[in-house]
Amino acid sequence: MHEKGFNNTGLQEILREAGIAKGSFYFYFKNKEDFGLQVVDAFFTHFADFAHQYFNDDSLSHVMRIKNFFNEFLDFFVNGDYKGGCPIGNFTLEMADVNDKFREQLLLIVDKSTSLVADQILLAQNKGEISNLDNPHSLAEFIFFTWEGMIMQMKLSRNTIALEQFNYHIFQNLLYKTEKTR
Amino acid sequence: MHEKGFNNTGLQEILREAGIAKGSFYFYFKNKEDFGLQVVDAFFTHFADFAHQYFNDDSLSHVMRIKNFFNEFLDFFVNGDYKGGCPIGNFTLEMADVNDKFREQLLLIVDKSTSLVADQILLAQNKGEISNLDNPHSLAEFIFFTWEGMIMQMKLSRNTIALEQFNYHIFQNLLYKTEKTR
Repeated sequence: MHEKGFNNTGLQEILREAGIAKGSFYFYFKNKEDFGLQVVDAFFTHFADFAHQYFNDDSLSHVMRIKNFFNEFLDFFVNGDYKGGCPIGNFTLEMADVNDKFREQLLLIVDKSTSLVADQILLAQNKGEISNLDNPHSLAEFIFFTWEGMIMQMKLSRNTIALEQFNYHIFQNLLYKTEKTR
Repeated sequence: MHEKGFNNTGLQEILREAGIAKGSFYFYFKNKEDFGLQVVDAFFTHFADFAHQYFNDDSLSHVMRIKNFFNEFLDFFVNGDYKGGCPIGNFTLEMADVNDKFREQLLLIVDKSTSLVADQILLAQNKGEISNLDNPHSLAEFIFFTWEGMIMQMKLSRNTIALEQFNYHIFQNLLYKTEKTR
């Protein structure tokens, strides 16, 4: 589903891969749509657990915690031959225009995810690591979706050049931009 | 196809919308895949025509030409209820992992598209509008895929807030970042 898309993956295929019977599936999920929505939820739980590990590392600056968090996905991408990418991005481009339940669920998950990053940005601002000119949540959203754009480039080129550009522009330039001038 | 995706749009639907017979379709296209690949090509022609209009406007700085070019899409998005987005981005997330013909075609089109933007960046650098520290093509690619990420956010939120963030971070901050410090 991660590679082929939601619509393009049949329920039979999901049951076969998971090794469960149809009856069991319908005990837990109303239908395939309900299953997809719960996949989105489950991904957020995974994302949040992962974020907390990085964001609670008191030995590093808050900017470095954010940077390390995003960069942790690199190994995963390289090991997966640059396929798959981010389930949130994939679901968004496939479903947001045609299914409001998915759009609303994804919007909620993105808001929760970017809030975790925004908390770190606010701490970085309060501790004087970076400029406090930008709204932390807007900045977190910009960083999150810039990352999604870079993942798109990675899927085309099958390399991590765009993700390195992300590190350079976001962490070397953008976050520190007014640091040098104030 | 733009809203529902390539796999999720049947050939019958395409024929009906276009008002042409199956035989006529197969006179011009080998199959649906060939049609999809030619849609990607046709979109680039449209993109390039559009870019040339903006990039040849000698009354403006090169940075303003790039900014105006990207912002011209806003009206189109607003009028389309924020649906559709960018065909290149949609095709990429749907097809790049599962179909190498699409991936290679998309990679080629993105390279041509970003080269047009890179030409303007190089001119802006040579004329001293912006810093010349960054490689024009890398910077153009970063801008292009950041834009793709913002379109993703727009599809979720159905507003242009992310596209305004793009203007702010790319055109007010990133392109001028070293201008202030050199």
